[in-house]
Amino acid sequence: MPHMTAYTKMTAQERKDEYARMSAKFEELKARGLKLNMARGKPGKDQLDMVSDVIFNLMDEPGDFVSNGIDVRNYGEMSGIPAAKQLFAEILDCRVEQVFVGGNSSLQLMYDTISKAYTHGLLHSVRPWCREEKVKWLCPVPGYDRHFKITESFGFEMVNIPMTSDGPDMDVVEEAVKDPAVKGIWCVPKYSNPDGIIYSDETVRRMAALKPAAPDFTVMWDNAYCVHEFEGDYVEFPDILAACAEAGNPDLVFEFASTSKITLPGAGVACFATSEANLKYMEQLLTIQIISFDKVNQQRHVLYLQNKAHTLELMKKHAAILGPKFHAVLDALDREIAPLDIATWCRPKGGYFISLNAMPGTAKRTWELCREAGVVMTGAGATFPYGKDPADSNLRIAPTLPPVEELEQAIEVLCVCLKLSALEKLGV
Amino acid sequence: MPHMTAYTKMTAQERKDEYARMSAKFEELKARGLKLNMARGKPGKDQLDMVSDVIFNLMDEPGDFVSNGIDVRNYGEMSGIPAAKQLFAEILDCRVEQVFVGGNSSLQLMYDTISKAYTHGLLHSVRPWCREEKVKWLCPVPGYDRHFKITESFGFEMVNIPMTSDGPDMDVVEEAVKDPAVKGIWCVPKYSNPDGIIYSDETVRRMAALKPAAPDFTVMWDNAYCVHEFEGDYVEFPDILAACAEAGNPDLVFEFASTSKITLPGAGVACFATSEANLKYMEQLLTIQIISFDKVNQQRHVLYLQNKAHTLELMKKHAAILGPKFHAVLDALDREIAPLDIATWCRPKGGYFISLNAMPGTAKRTWELCREAGVVMTGAGATFPYGKDPADSNLRIAPTLPPVEELEQAIEVLCVCLKLSALEKLGV
Repeated sequence: MPHMTAYTKMTAQERKDEYARMSAKFEELKARGLKLNMARGKPGKDQLDMVSDVIFNLMDEPGDFVSNGIDVRNYGEMSGIPAAKQLFAEILDCRVEQVFVGGNSSLQLMYDTISKAYTHGLLHSVRPWCREEKVKWLCPVPGYDRHFKITESFGFEMVNIPMTSDGPDMDVVEEAVKDPAVKGIWCVPKYSNPDGIIYSDETVRRMAALKPAAPDFTVMWDNAYCVHEFEGDYVEFPDILAACAEAGNPDLVFEFASTSKITLPGAGVACFATSEANLKYMEQLLTIQIISFDKVNQQRHVLYLQNKAHTLELMKKHAAILGPKFHAVLDALDREIAPLDIATWCRPKGGYFISLNAMPGTAKRTWELCREAGVVMTGAGATFPYGKDPADSNLRIAPTLPPVEELEQAIEVLCVCLKLSALEKLGV
Repeated sequence: MPHMTAYTKMTAQERKDEYARMSAKFEELKARGLKLNMARGKPGKDQLDMVSDVIFNLMDEPGDFVSNGIDVRNYGEMSGIPAAKQLFAEILDCRVEQVFVGGNSSLQLMYDTISKAYTHGLLHSVRPWCREEKVKWLCPVPGYDRHFKITESFGFEMVNIPMTSDGPDMDVVEEAVKDPAVKGIWCVPKYSNPDGIIYSDETVRRMAALKPAAPDFTVMWDNAYCVHEFEGDYVEFPDILAACAEAGNPDLVFEFASTSKITLPGAGVACFATSEANLKYMEQLLTIQIISFDKVNQQRHVLYLQNKAHTLELMKKHAAILGPKFHAVLDALDREIAPLDIATWCRPKGGYFISLNAMPGTAKRTWELCREAGVVMTGAGATFPYGKDPADSNLRIAPTLPPVEELEQAIEVLCVCLKLSALEKLGV
């Protein structure tokens, strides 16, 4: 079969013929009038059903609304109910005194942390960041577009940090933090978005031991996928808070997590964990903003998830749904794209994404072709600050929302589009 | 009975005798070891039970999680589900296109509005407020301490505006807004916190027709008690958004409301309503902060409250619980304090508070005596910016949380403390 030759090794005529075949295939796919979405890391309907069948039927009696003597229906307990703190402390392997439990969105907690640094400053700030001449921020790339949007929104100058298979390139990070204008870094330490990389112990150790010039440099440690294996056993991770404390940097880090992909994205519970000194400082600011978050939902999650072991059992059930979706994508890429030598991709065992590097200069074109054929992907470039991928290569595949049969159609479209854009780039 | 003479008309000896009697009474009350709370506007347990018995049993089947084709369990619909917007539009008598439905806290939506004005500016801002030399803010007094804390937290200079029985003194407001540094005003237009005043139509009209020097002057219209009658019929209120539009000020106002005292304080739904231009501008900023608020809870509220008429029926049930509590306080004040001519108080028909003006110079002392006897009240001065009541006179009574029998004890304590502090002031 002609398409099993690497495109770079084809003659011009062979590429011309292949392009004609793929163009015909593309028209055929387009004619199907597909409307498929691989853009965002959304759980699928079967995952939502699995959770909502149970979680909303746990609070029947008045006693269910009382936790440690607290009536969760009334105002109060701004930092969250103790039982919810306990649950997250166990999941994150940190101390309960370090945990703040909020509403349904960890993004909101992250935004508010940055926003308060900007308006009021953090614990060790000399002044609010809005009074700084310039604020710079380190962004491991490819990364999470919503992180980058926050720091862009506040006008920070974002600095790309290359990712390695062990996490952010710590040589580059250690050099960069010597600049006192550099105030922080975005990190997704386990199953990074989008590469699915797990930071090595050495990376975590070096991150915790940073000696930044800025006294209020902050590691934003978004542990979004801390228990989110879809293949294989649960992978332990080091407690970043303890690592920072041991390295003499107790106030360096804010860790974030949520149940958005454990229970429900629209109605989960989010938290952050940080040193007790940071927590006390932040609570003074947060108590001006809100009387209390939704403690009924916190209690509902405590009753549903119970503890870490029970949470990990639930994650196995999610994995049984998600695993086949990831394999459908990877199998298609292995079959259709690997022999052509026009793209590389990661093989994560957890998280919500597959990161694909198309032939440089073809990501945008591939994305446009996909859209033309009715398949919406995360925008090309979105995984880089300002939406600018210098190589125009990275595409983030989010295979979790569509059912497998739809996903197979979507990935078929993606493969054809990757081929067309590579052939166009090579010349046809 | 000696204490039925106004204290100012007593002889020194009569006051001395009365003080001795009241001191003995105070010691007797103290000896009871009371632990009562009249500090915050919290609904009581019977109100919570009434709601939670029903509201958490409405979502049983998969179809209950779909609203207008939207799966409320997943990410998306950042500005709220259409059905929830419709519900609030009906309650606030505004258009559905003007409504944003958020999480469980209207305070959070208010804080975020001010915070975004500070970090990014509002629609008509020349620059973010953090770049202004000075920001001033109008605060009708007495008012809501949590409002004042927000503007204090951002370093705004707060300007006291006297309240009249028709709302803020509009002569003073109209004069104050000629200063371009004055960027906004806090308002609680119906059953104001703490006075329980309903702004007159004329006040609303003049507020909507303000011609402030600052192009981004903003009326923060906290309609917290829009359907919160505890006595008599529902009182209609004018649509401030329409009034502003008619006066040529379409973008002047942000209106806020929540179900905290309709359903549950810890787990209700909050909204804001503003011009479509303001809304579009704010959504661009809010979409950086959060993917979506808890739409399951929004849907739960749509199913439970249904519409305005049904919501007003529920409020009648709350009124049946709350009315006797307010009457217990008012009856005691009428009986014990009125003849002594040492305090005045409002007689609201809705809202959550009774505002009491003690003899000038005695509010703090009264508060301290109450605390000594085991009754916690909202801090004296809290109803003024910076916690400073120039007359040291205003006390906010929050009678909603304790059961009537506890409330009667608490108010007995308050009356004795009012008497003691007045007698001390007059000289004993």
